[in-house]
Amino acid sequence: MELNVAQKLIKDHLVSGEMKPGAEIGLKVDQTLTQDATGTMVMLELEAMGLDYPKTEASAQYVDHNLIQVDSKNPDDHLFLESAAHKFGLYYSRPGNGVSHPVHMQRLAAPGKTLLGSDSHTCANGCMGMLAMGAGGIDVAMAITGEPVYITMPEVMGVKLTGNLPDWVSAKDVILEMLRRYDVKGGVGKIIEYYGPGLDNLSAMDRHVIANMGAELGATATVFPSDEEVKSFLSQQNREEDWVELKADDGATYDINDEINLSELEPLIAKPSSPGNVVPVSEIAGTPIYQSYIGSSANPGYRDFAIAAEIVKGRRIAHGMSFDINPTSRQMLTNLVKDMHIASLLQAGARLHQAGCNGCIGMGQAPASGRNSLRTTPRNFPGRSGTREDSVYLCSPETAAASALKGEITDPRTLEFPYPKVTGPSEQNVEDDLLENPLPQEEARNVDLVKGPNIVSIPEMDKLPDTLEIPVLLKVGDNISTDEILAGGARVLPYRSNLPEISKFTFEAIDSTYVDRAIDTKKLSGHAIVGGYNYGQGSSREHAALAPRYLGLRVALAKDFARIHWQNLVNFGVIPLTFTNEKDYEELEDGEVLKFTDLRAQLKEGNELTIELAGSGGTINAAHSLSKRQKEIILEGGLINWIKDKQHS
Amino acid sequence: MELNVAQKLIKDHLVSGEMKPGAEIGLKVDQTLTQDATGTMVMLELEAMGLDYPKTEASAQYVDHNLIQVDSKNPDDHLFLESAAHKFGLYYSRPGNGVSHPVHMQRLAAPGKTLLGSDSHTCANGCMGMLAMGAGGIDVAMAITGEPVYITMPEVMGVKLTGNLPDWVSAKDVILEMLRRYDVKGGVGKIIEYYGPGLDNLSAMDRHVIANMGAELGATATVFPSDEEVKSFLSQQNREEDWVELKADDGATYDINDEINLSELEPLIAKPSSPGNVVPVSEIAGTPIYQSYIGSSANPGYRDFAIAAEIVKGRRIAHGMSFDINPTSRQMLTNLVKDMHIASLLQAGARLHQAGCNGCIGMGQAPASGRNSLRTTPRNFPGRSGTREDSVYLCSPETAAASALKGEITDPRTLEFPYPKVTGPSEQNVEDDLLENPLPQEEARNVDLVKGPNIVSIPEMDKLPDTLEIPVLLKVGDNISTDEILAGGARVLPYRSNLPEISKFTFEAIDSTYVDRAIDTKKLSGHAIVGGYNYGQGSSREHAALAPRYLGLRVALAKDFARIHWQNLVNFGVIPLTFTNEKDYEELEDGEVLKFTDLRAQLKEGNELTIELAGSGGTINAAHSLSKRQKEIILEGGLINWIKDKQHS
Repeated sequence: MELNVAQKLIKDHLVSGEMKPGAEIGLKVDQTLTQDATGTMVMLELEAMGLDYPKTEASAQYVDHNLIQVDSKNPDDHLFLESAAHKFGLYYSRPGNGVSHPVHMQRLAAPGKTLLGSDSHTCANGCMGMLAMGAGGIDVAMAITGEPVYITMPEVMGVKLTGNLPDWVSAKDVILEMLRRYDVKGGVGKIIEYYGPGLDNLSAMDRHVIANMGAELGATATVFPSDEEVKSFLSQQNREEDWVELKADDGATYDINDEINLSELEPLIAKPSSPGNVVPVSEIAGTPIYQSYIGSSANPGYRDFAIAAEIVKGRRIAHGMSFDINPTSRQMLTNLVKDMHIASLLQAGARLHQAGCNGCIGMGQAPASGRNSLRTTPRNFPGRSGTREDSVYLCSPETAAASALKGEITDPRTLEFPYPKVTGPSEQNVEDDLLENPLPQEEARNVDLVKGPNIVSIPEMDKLPDTLEIPVLLKVGDNISTDEILAGGARVLPYRSNLPEISKFTFEAIDSTYVDRAIDTKKLSGHAIVGGYNYGQGSSREHAALAPRYLGLRVALAKDFARIHWQNLVNFGVIPLTFTNEKDYEELEDGEVLKFTDLRAQLKEGNELTIELAGSGGTINAAHSLSKRQKEIILEGGLINWIKDKQHS
Repeated sequence: MELNVAQKLIKDHLVSGEMKPGAEIGLKVDQTLTQDATGTMVMLELEAMGLDYPKTEASAQYVDHNLIQVDSKNPDDHLFLESAAHKFGLYYSRPGNGVSHPVHMQRLAAPGKTLLGSDSHTCANGCMGMLAMGAGGIDVAMAITGEPVYITMPEVMGVKLTGNLPDWVSAKDVILEMLRRYDVKGGVGKIIEYYGPGLDNLSAMDRHVIANMGAELGATATVFPSDEEVKSFLSQQNREEDWVELKADDGATYDINDEINLSELEPLIAKPSSPGNVVPVSEIAGTPIYQSYIGSSANPGYRDFAIAAEIVKGRRIAHGMSFDINPTSRQMLTNLVKDMHIASLLQAGARLHQAGCNGCIGMGQAPASGRNSLRTTPRNFPGRSGTREDSVYLCSPETAAASALKGEITDPRTLEFPYPKVTGPSEQNVEDDLLENPLPQEEARNVDLVKGPNIVSIPEMDKLPDTLEIPVLLKVGDNISTDEILAGGARVLPYRSNLPEISKFTFEAIDSTYVDRAIDTKKLSGHAIVGGYNYGQGSSREHAALAPRYLGLRVALAKDFARIHWQNLVNFGVIPLTFTNEKDYEELEDGEVLKFTDLRAQLKEGNELTIELAGSGGTINAAHSLSKRQKEIILEGGLINWIKDKQHS
């Protein structure tokens, strides 16, 4: 049977399941990436798992998110990550090297491989003929230990590209066109595969732009073939030996089909406050702006900065404008410096920031109140810039630079000079040794983790006992979000590597007495929580399961669960149960004591448990849908114990 | 009589008083500078004073301190400052243009002039043959309205420079030598004037380094003559027409004399945690470091970055090192980019930050816990880096770069290659229109101030009434600091432009009920506070007087006052009184009601007031040492009312 590129990548890595859309499949993971915001917990998980050395071909730890150092917390994290990278045999990319996705592409990405990363834009490296996917931190930790990643087999949508981009239109407009057509949920459950003659006119870095914002379509992944463009990119990086060709078979088909004629595209822009809110730039031209922002993994290429530089060269940005330049890698910044593009930007009035994620993840460059900000970044969700009620537009570097000159949203085709042609870099500066190689296994074993005062190992957690007699410590209603279970934000997140501290914020918004009461139960055999419908909706943050578990949570009994939180509860050894008879929800009171007898055997055997109500008397039944593997995880007390046993047995 | 440079500058600007050390003198102010951290309050004061147009020759508003934008507060401040600069006829230097002191030197500093700035390193421009001094915000606001600045006539210390700096030794080592000799209080009450043949070997920017850290000696100012070096600097800036010669008369003498033979200097370093803690680098060579930091107004020159670049060029910084480069102006950064010095730094492993004060004032680049940081900045006070219990060393760019290569404190003379000679910049890039010129007066009048939600005008304050009957709202002990009156720090300082909000923190640490009780008195005729000895010690922050005044404080009655807080109370219309009979302190209770009759006349006439105790009965006497001008200020309700009347009468 003829296969498309996505199918080939999956087939080559399939370790379990069937390649039928909707079925669960397990895939071998060749490479991983972690960034600093998610990476500290991944490293603590690897420590708790007792990892000796990674089973992947290449795993890299990047520092690109939390670069603002106003106290010792972020720099302490950086040193911890550096020591963890050394100890666990990972590549280490220090602060200043740039954003994970373009740096990974430059130094490690390889066609035909799978990449799992604890960052939602990991999909960007699909541009290299890879199957690259974002995942939760513990999934990446598991992949580093050699476990497969489990996903639902997606449908493959083939998008045929024809034609050639007109002047003033670039790759960002291609993905904005996809978002215009499909909006932010249009890619859910799908891999998007681009093919066709139009690809010859898109460089590997252009494809990075398109693959990156596949995340905004909700797609499982975006894939491109590995062709001459990929070869040429690798060759520029002195890595031609990593190239293999990877193309769809002649006659390969797709589950869904679409086509974009690049020649017909025009400059597009996503209005506040969704990346799917796309209109032609011309439609809103003249809207005043106060900030124009170039950078992020959504427009990370040399070309993306060079074209902006050529547009403003010898000109001056509009009065009152903040023109913020955020280089995406040290290597690229060096090239841009050497080719005088940075000088052109500075002389036009730009503010040059350090290489990293920066304002794209709300770390700096927040706009002023009530002002419009134009950005080449991938997301404009409300408040993501750091400013409440912000007004952020997403566009190409061409549109951002043209608008910076005019002080208002400007269709770059209306500028009064010809489209500058960008070539280069004139000479590629490969600085291999600034991305530090993994230590050899023998040397790695001797490395000690460097832990600042705010970095605390994950405490050992016990296995599931055979008998549990636990109070219901909290009964909540429907649609409790992970934000209510454990908030994000600047007050809480600095403790992400300090479980004892961050757990003090658990359920804060719902019941400020919970934490103290939970700690009391922790000394005994723990406690249970009772929830309504859709328990654990919202953000996928793992801490919303890990923190209550740390405080003694053993059982969450709800009407039903949000999918990701359910998975997180299992991963950390909490039994997620649903009422067999929903009316029992009404009967259960705060303070009721749930007694489980013969628990391990009951769990192993079926999908229903009997719970004795030790307070009021009587019994109720509760169900679960745990797979055999998930039951094992819970019996062991969570994924960390499970993998630790597996590795050392 | 033969005059030295300091005396000439003073004589040329003297408007009141006698040039005898210790006497109060009034000086005409030609130029002012404000930065963003202090400038927002200065601009609100100008608004409250009803300033039409500045009386100075050049006043500039810089944005260099609060460049980290994690929410809308800092960018809102920037827009407010931009609008205020336009409205009040000031130059405006936008974020990205760089640190006030070097930018002012490049674009506005002129020999023979006086400069008053709301930043303690304003003294840096003494390198240009100016009398340049730091001051409080309201002093600068007054200067902008044309009022003189009042200082105590200092002694002049003449430091004769001979010889020439050896290889690997630079201007920073000269000022470190002064700090080694005199420590951090050695310059108090003095102007330090450098002269002698050694000057021929120090460029204007080298002198900036020396003048800048005169602040660390506690000196009133540092002055250099205006000679060929100054002429050459101005000529590079296309400003040769601003040059005038200014030299000491032959035979001029100094109150105090010292001499430094530059040829005998060696690389010096200030150990934690005082700039006066100076030893030779060789004495502590080998101490491990984790961070090497280049930048700030203490080493702002092209040369300071270029020498670091030449030292690390083609080499690699040590493993694990954070090598942080903080350009000090856009113009200099452009020069450094064009001359490939930035490329050398990046390729050696540097992190390149935006142009501004940055880590020098604790805005980023805080070191990790328990690690040593080496910096070319002027201050290493405990915690100033942002990290508690930090360990910061101060040194030259040569020492910082050599140490970055080695990963430990390194005497640069021990490097195994010859001292690189730095020339340049190859071509000066003057970008005049990025430092925006003042608007013409007619245009300025039509500008509206742009106030984000956190920027609130200073409310009008009433004149001193003739009768006051006010309760003692708070009685405190000895040595109450301005930190206890109104804290600094990240929780409070963001409200520095919002008096109603910041006043809510008043006396928080001492009595959390004070604010509510004070607001109640505000509706009546206000309240009094009773203090012990040394009331208002510590930081000079004006808000510690302004906030209680806003809440209704009319009288502060203490055993005695710290000098600056006493001045601030007067400036904002609070009567600072001392007990004639200190035993009365013991008698006075919280809640006692003080009654002042015929108050305006009593105040005008003498130096003692009679206070009737309306609660307990009886009277006490209290004294003050207000000058005629200060009495007028208090009668008007504070300096803002006083100058408003004066301007409009």
